[in-house]
Amino acid sequence: MITTRLDLDRIRAARRMVDPVFLDTPLYECDALGSVLGCTVSIKLETANPVRSFKGRGTELVASLLAEQGRPALVCASAGNLGQALGWSGRRRGLDVTVVASRRAPAAKLDRIRALGAALEIVDGDFEQARERASELARQRGVRLVEDSLDIETCEGAATIGLELAAFSCDMVLIALGGGAMATGIGHVLKTLSPGVEVVCVQPAGAPAMTRSFHARRVVTTDSMDTIADGVAGRFPIPEVLDDLLAVADDAVLVREESIVRGMRMLLEHAGLVVEPSAALGVAAILEDPERFAGRNVVTVICGSNVDIDAYHRWVFGSPS
Amino acid sequence: MITTRLDLDRIRAARRMVDPVFLDTPLYECDALGSVLGCTVSIKLETANPVRSFKGRGTELVASLLAEQGRPALVCASAGNLGQALGWSGRRRGLDVTVVASRRAPAAKLDRIRALGAALEIVDGDFEQARERASELARQRGVRLVEDSLDIETCEGAATIGLELAAFSCDMVLIALGGGAMATGIGHVLKTLSPGVEVVCVQPAGAPAMTRSFHARRVVTTDSMDTIADGVAGRFPIPEVLDDLLAVADDAVLVREESIVRGMRMLLEHAGLVVEPSAALGVAAILEDPERFAGRNVVTVICGSNVDIDAYHRWVFGSPS
Repeated sequence: MITTRLDLDRIRAARRMVDPVFLDTPLYECDALGSVLGCTVSIKLETANPVRSFKGRGTELVASLLAEQGRPALVCASAGNLGQALGWSGRRRGLDVTVVASRRAPAAKLDRIRALGAALEIVDGDFEQARERASELARQRGVRLVEDSLDIETCEGAATIGLELAAFSCDMVLIALGGGAMATGIGHVLKTLSPGVEVVCVQPAGAPAMTRSFHARRVVTTDSMDTIADGVAGRFPIPEVLDDLLAVADDAVLVREESIVRGMRMLLEHAGLVVEPSAALGVAAILEDPERFAGRNVVTVICGSNVDIDAYHRWVFGSPS
Repeated sequence: MITTRLDLDRIRAARRMVDPVFLDTPLYECDALGSVLGCTVSIKLETANPVRSFKGRGTELVASLLAEQGRPALVCASAGNLGQALGWSGRRRGLDVTVVASRRAPAAKLDRIRALGAALEIVDGDFEQARERASELARQRGVRLVEDSLDIETCEGAATIGLELAAFSCDMVLIALGGGAMATGIGHVLKTLSPGVEVVCVQPAGAPAMTRSFHARRVVTTDSMDTIADGVAGRFPIPEVLDDLLAVADDAVLVREESIVRGMRMLLEHAGLVVEPSAALGVAAILEDPERFAGRNVVTVICGSNVDIDAYHRWVFGSPS
């Protein structure tokens, strides 16, 4: 019996709260990618939706709940994808959404947050400074602070991916690790329904706080970060989320920036997918440790495709577009 | 009452013969694309599957039928996507698949046909010469010739997209027009179930035979073709398919090559999608006639993503990768 803050019945119920546009995403074996990587690779594609990331699964829950409670406003910190998804879910329900983001976030993500009608506040520091500022704003205004990975709705929303994966035959699932909502969500479901499936989290070596914490079995913070995988870059793991992660993940590994870039290029060439760096972490993990994956049946979750095209071009082709 | 060679009950039954990996594909409004194009644009994404095009919907029917009949071999001509999909559907059923393709077909498509274990024969001419050679081979060997758009399974397979679109609220659907299987398939379903939805076919001005035939209401052939949209390039419309198209399409329009390239670039920038030229025809049509689409609620079918990355790069970014 897996014990985390998450609950399978609530996760099943969550599917009914989430706009179907985010559910039952494509899941298919990609022959071409598998043959270059030396294992069977299946893709769980979370980008073909109005916000181009998996975050809508969680924000639909958060926004439904706030609307039900008659709480018209919310504040969140976001690396970009959460803000965009909350903007989308909030707009449909007439909620007043404020997003705090780092100036270093991709312009494409910031532009879309604005386009969705959310108020955007930019801070000079990194994502952790955006978190502090969001918390301060929520306190000042007396409105709800949505905290990704800490708020159970964000984890249980992501966990609906796990329900879809549990019906699929595979040996292991590779999940991008940032704050931990997706890893604990999918992990909780798989460890409950398909305990034989290995749950492996992947984080950039340039932003390793959660992975270090997982291996130390206690919160380890870092002073700085240096990764292009903006979507998973954080320095202060949340203790409750770490506890959940320890209960459901089999492993957490770190990958180099050059592997993330190679992964992005391979997803483009062999799967025809443009992805943001966070979504290439699974392929990067296979590239760095091919023996571990050889001959196995692996699913990688393609969690987002919100990139600035110029940056993408520079990474993948080595020059600005 | 719409009368074509297609039948709604058979199309509904077809869904049960097609591997679910090809069905219920993503369908979502793309805000970012709509705001640059001046209308509401929704995407029907047919690329997130093992063959990266919609063709699997039809080849699953063809291959099931042949396997049932105990006919172990088949030959087809293909611009690349049909061959890949038949290779995939045939491999799973132990069928012996021979694909005839033009040397001008994208190397990426030809490589994948080989990788799926199909026998590949290359002809020096264009797609129409591949069709002649495939027909000759089938006669010599006494095996089934699969003819895209003429064989009803290829049309009714594509028509399953129409069932999914009929449940969606829109004013018009933009469909890439080549041999006509997709246009007649989707058109038949929409004109039966949602007669108010306008069905508009889009073809490159560099390969206009079917569109000219549609407007002339009789088969018009051309001597040559000149388009990057390899997936829809043909010179000899099939009379039976033209009759079906006349019964279900509201219009067929031609677009310039530069609009196809702009469409590909916009799909990359605003939707995060790498597509083959044929899949950008719908966006190209909006770009060329914005008044016609202004304020309307349009679905465009993204029918394939099998491109050579170097060619894609040259088209979209103006230089080889």
